[in-house]
Amino acid sequence: MSQQMSFKDLMKVLGLGAVAFVLGVEWLNWLTRHLRDSHGPLKEVLFFPSPQVCVEHLFTRRKRFPCACPLPHGVETSFSRLLGHLLSARMSLDLCVFSTSFSRLLGHLLSARMSLDLCVFSFSHMELSRAILLLHKQGVVVRVVTDRDYMTITGSQIGTVRKAGIRVRHEMSAAVHMHHKFALVDGRKLITGSLNWTLTAVQSNKENVMVTEELELVRPYQQEFQKLWEASDPANHKPQCTNGQLH
Amino acid sequence: MSQQMSFKDLMKVLGLGAVAFVLGVEWLNWLTRHLRDSHGPLKEVLFFPSPQVCVEHLFTRRKRFPCACPLPHGVETSFSRLLGHLLSARMSLDLCVFSTSFSRLLGHLLSARMSLDLCVFSFSHMELSRAILLLHKQGVVVRVVTDRDYMTITGSQIGTVRKAGIRVRHEMSAAVHMHHKFALVDGRKLITGSLNWTLTAVQSNKENVMVTEELELVRPYQQEFQKLWEASDPANHKPQCTNGQLH
Repeated sequence: MSQQMSFKDLMKVLGLGAVAFVLGVEWLNWLTRHLRDSHGPLKEVLFFPSPQVCVEHLFTRRKRFPCACPLPHGVETSFSRLLGHLLSARMSLDLCVFSTSFSRLLGHLLSARMSLDLCVFSFSHMELSRAILLLHKQGVVVRVVTDRDYMTITGSQIGTVRKAGIRVRHEMSAAVHMHHKFALVDGRKLITGSLNWTLTAVQSNKENVMVTEELELVRPYQQEFQKLWEASDPANHKPQCTNGQLH
Repeated sequence: MSQQMSFKDLMKVLGLGAVAFVLGVEWLNWLTRHLRDSHGPLKEVLFFPSPQVCVEHLFTRRKRFPCACPLPHGVETSFSRLLGHLLSARMSLDLCVFSTSFSRLLGHLLSARMSLDLCVFSFSHMELSRAILLLHKQGVVVRVVTDRDYMTITGSQIGTVRKAGIRVRHEMSAAVHMHHKFALVDGRKLITGSLNWTLTAVQSNKENVMVTEELELVRPYQQEFQKLWEASDPANHKPQCTNGQLH
């Protein structure tokens, strides 16, 4: 009888053990999924125009805001977040007044530590140019592909960044526009949308910018950038000489 | 001794049962995750320009391709996939030759069954206009928000779709451009990028279009569309009369 009881007890212990084990595994599984989901790939959408805020703290990384501009300070907006990301690259610019979406956009750009691949139709925005120059000075490898026609229009920043030593290439065909407006930060954060890098786009137009680290979305843009970078290599477009004539 | 053996056997059976149960639960878990991941939210990126293919089958839904055009038939490309999605709305257009990315884009648009909310800066592409008109005829509720200046430029399709009874609104300010290029299919599929709805954009320019059903990305664009739709309601912009004077 004692043997019989011990046998029943063992059955109970084994049964309860199995149930506890299964529940434990399931709980760990749920926990892993929950943690993964709550820290999933970045997905953020910015719309322009947006309210104006002070973004000085993003550039100086000061916790307090000595900037005297009358706009709201320390507000989390589209622009301030962009600036925040950009400024994690330890920038120091004397900006103050920008829209919230622009501050977030700038934050994303300034978050670059290794590389910034930029593919933009028109580029005349002074502060975005300053951000790119600062990243370049900090050793971030910046590559720019732009449109041929819009390289030299009034206010274009392409000449400025090129003079600073940043590698710039342009669409080779005069009949085609390089109309993309996307950037890849450290090859893993995609910034894309309708926004050209101009003052009108940032301050006036109705625009959208999507920021994501979703690999399925980032990877095609990486491949497209590399394709465009190679296709716009001047070395591939040298005039060819046949029968003594240039073509 | 017989009791002892039986007890050991039962232990083995229980042990193996517990292991089998745990493995079974884990396998079911893996299978669920795998199925969920492989059917996760749509994420697709289209680049322009892209190779030319025949897209006639997308409009007629024929399994064979009687179309006599010399281009590759039945090729899965960016444009053919777009067309496929659009054409799931039972379209019938006499198209033949389009780029692969355009065919996929058109597929996505034509997948609309209930609604299509379109927010586009310039809209002059004839076949995209035909697709919109067909959706409207099929009872899909189409709403368009566009730019004020680009409504009446040569080749604009805005007048055509408006005459057909499609509701069109435009940015109210003459000083600001409504520069978005996004569409929401049935309120759940987002199509966004650099591509304006023009022939040059589709056939020549370097452009990108992202198609996604990721809720975190779709929702902000839904809200933005609704905001723009209400802000561009002519009823909110009637001339106001104060002190007998119009303002």
